[in-house]
Amino acid sequence: MKLRLSKRALKEDFQGQFVKMMLDVAAKGDLISFAGGLPNPISFPVKEIKEACCKVLDNNGIQSLQYNNADGYLPLREFIANRYKMQGADIKAKNILITNGSQQALDIIASVLIDAGDDVLVEDPSYLVALQTFHIYNPNIRTVSLNEDGANLEEFKESMNKYNHKLFYSVPTFQNPTGITYTSEVREKIAEIMKGKDTFFIEDNPYGELRFRGEHQKSFYNLLGEQAILMGTFSKTFSPGFRMGWIACGVDEVINKMKHYKQLVDFHTSIFSQMVVAQYLKDNDYDAHIKKITDLYKKQCDYMLEAMDKYFAKDIHWTHPEGGMFIWVKLPKGIDAVELGKKAADNGVAIAPGEPFYESKRGEGTFRLNYTNSSPEMIDKGISILSKVIEEMKKSK
Amino acid sequence: MKLRLSKRALKEDFQGQFVKMMLDVAAKGDLISFAGGLPNPISFPVKEIKEACCKVLDNNGIQSLQYNNADGYLPLREFIANRYKMQGADIKAKNILITNGSQQALDIIASVLIDAGDDVLVEDPSYLVALQTFHIYNPNIRTVSLNEDGANLEEFKESMNKYNHKLFYSVPTFQNPTGITYTSEVREKIAEIMKGKDTFFIEDNPYGELRFRGEHQKSFYNLLGEQAILMGTFSKTFSPGFRMGWIACGVDEVINKMKHYKQLVDFHTSIFSQMVVAQYLKDNDYDAHIKKITDLYKKQCDYMLEAMDKYFAKDIHWTHPEGGMFIWVKLPKGIDAVELGKKAADNGVAIAPGEPFYESKRGEGTFRLNYTNSSPEMIDKGISILSKVIEEMKKSK
Repeated sequence: MKLRLSKRALKEDFQGQFVKMMLDVAAKGDLISFAGGLPNPISFPVKEIKEACCKVLDNNGIQSLQYNNADGYLPLREFIANRYKMQGADIKAKNILITNGSQQALDIIASVLIDAGDDVLVEDPSYLVALQTFHIYNPNIRTVSLNEDGANLEEFKESMNKYNHKLFYSVPTFQNPTGITYTSEVREKIAEIMKGKDTFFIEDNPYGELRFRGEHQKSFYNLLGEQAILMGTFSKTFSPGFRMGWIACGVDEVINKMKHYKQLVDFHTSIFSQMVVAQYLKDNDYDAHIKKITDLYKKQCDYMLEAMDKYFAKDIHWTHPEGGMFIWVKLPKGIDAVELGKKAADNGVAIAPGEPFYESKRGEGTFRLNYTNSSPEMIDKGISILSKVIEEMKKSK
Repeated sequence: MKLRLSKRALKEDFQGQFVKMMLDVAAKGDLISFAGGLPNPISFPVKEIKEACCKVLDNNGIQSLQYNNADGYLPLREFIANRYKMQGADIKAKNILITNGSQQALDIIASVLIDAGDDVLVEDPSYLVALQTFHIYNPNIRTVSLNEDGANLEEFKESMNKYNHKLFYSVPTFQNPTGITYTSEVREKIAEIMKGKDTFFIEDNPYGELRFRGEHQKSFYNLLGEQAILMGTFSKTFSPGFRMGWIACGVDEVINKMKHYKQLVDFHTSIFSQMVVAQYLKDNDYDAHIKKITDLYKKQCDYMLEAMDKYFAKDIHWTHPEGGMFIWVKLPKGIDAVELGKKAADNGVAIAPGEPFYESKRGEGTFRLNYTNSSPEMIDKGISILSKVIEEMKKSK
């Protein structure tokens, strides 16, 4: 039979092809991997999850296995609402929708807000899978470049004046891929520019709980109120395998449309999994658990920064994250990050070249390093190898 | 701010509004409910799930909580492939994609196959949430009516000749909402008409395992090979709350696009949940468990059919299912099923009027009864009340 796939399915996917290429490179063998974004298994409370599973099945077996509603398990939504409240954002449980990780949150937000041809604004570089998700809905994607303190304000203002953006998608805290965090000054200026416009600020915040130095930054909900739509996840502080995330949106009409769409795409997120997460949060000290994770990540980040100071030449530059999982590196002019990625893999080290994180820029000579899933020895060895490969590439220019 | 939702989100949703209205009616109080499609909790192996959870966390805690790939957990896909093989359909594990229930399977299939304006064919009446899902993608939905032995063959042939359908969506076994099953003769004729065309047969089969009388019918995969795409679920034989379903599609190019889309919309289905289901299936006698369910459903179905024989007047007609969860009722001319639905609820019985199951037909005087979640006493009482309400409506005509 002649295959007739949808235009959606046949669309070119630079990000996807690139990721596949890098996975193929990485599949070659036993690599030191700084490429991925896997949480360290220290963040998985295996024993406590087992206890929670048993409790849920013993006490509410039938309810946890039957159909439920699309909104999500109320005690879980209440926990999330309460945590926002402690951070100064007054969001009610009814304005929260539980999703299969924040990846599904992205798709639901895009589906409910974006028509083909709409203008949307993203950071450059941005989270690559967010770019892929937006591409499904065919918007005109505009970009704003990033400085160490957040989005470039001039570019942001210009784009906001020129286009009537449906949304600005941002990871303002420990950004993926750069690791940078918007300062409070930049946050306030961004909010000022956005006030009175019809543009939603989509605050994706998967890493916000993983701060290991510096000051807590306010959510954009504190600055923009209902104009900010928040995305959150338990992937980095509990388990990514559970696929448990959420959307918080103060506008009833919008969150209700999102709930409706969620119901159409998969009815609801596993109620059993939701009840297990809620039980875990009830019975355990979540903040103490998070502290264990951030203590480790701080050490790993510092090892990596020290190794970079030790091995990398002066013409290589990088960010200094206050939390999260990533460091972003800028190579000296003329060194191609994709080529570096291949050569590094040949030498036993995997990195994530910057290419797929950009909507359209190519050949920027940037790459992302992940430090959360490697031992000090691997970090030292890996960075030393990377440095040698870069220096060899310089020589052979 | 001025809200600007997508056209997709603002689309009228007759099915959704109708379901909401019926839920509001049902929310009034303590009803005997024949309206829903909830499995009886007898199908939830609570104790065995607890054992499986503990085993998975004890033996593979880290793996079950970390990120995984979009395809799904291989041992689970192998179990499904093996079960198809025993039924004569040679489908490989690599051609199976695990989804969040078969509801997400529907959305993924629609997304990968349907462009706006494409012709697709559905049964009339059809599964109402399938209609809602297809509506997202703006196809021209054509319909074929149903007889007791399956789709009306003349209508089917005519529609297949007139339109170049992308797909025919069907629930050929214990159909939702009618409870009917395509006979082997009708199956063969449908396959004959479809052979050589570029139309996929989408076989949605959530109830196939729930046969309590009659002969097993071949899957359309046995008749059409790779031209048939199969949807399955563990919702009716294990737990709907787990949200565990799948797509089986023999065409590599198509299943790979589906896996790619799955990755974009939520990365993967909870790997923990997948491993728990796989562990359960490994350690328990699934067929013996299913027999417990079908023994119960047979009794409940027979109670309901007997009560209908006992209470319903001769001018009311209904289907006689060989399995599954539903009986479909046709009212005498002039009796409106929506009005009956409201009056029955006022008298303590909830039913599902036929309206939202039709793509465009209205006022057919049909409704759906579910028998899986009510005791014999409730069935007898509920049917008796329904009969009285119908007779009163006849009198007041």
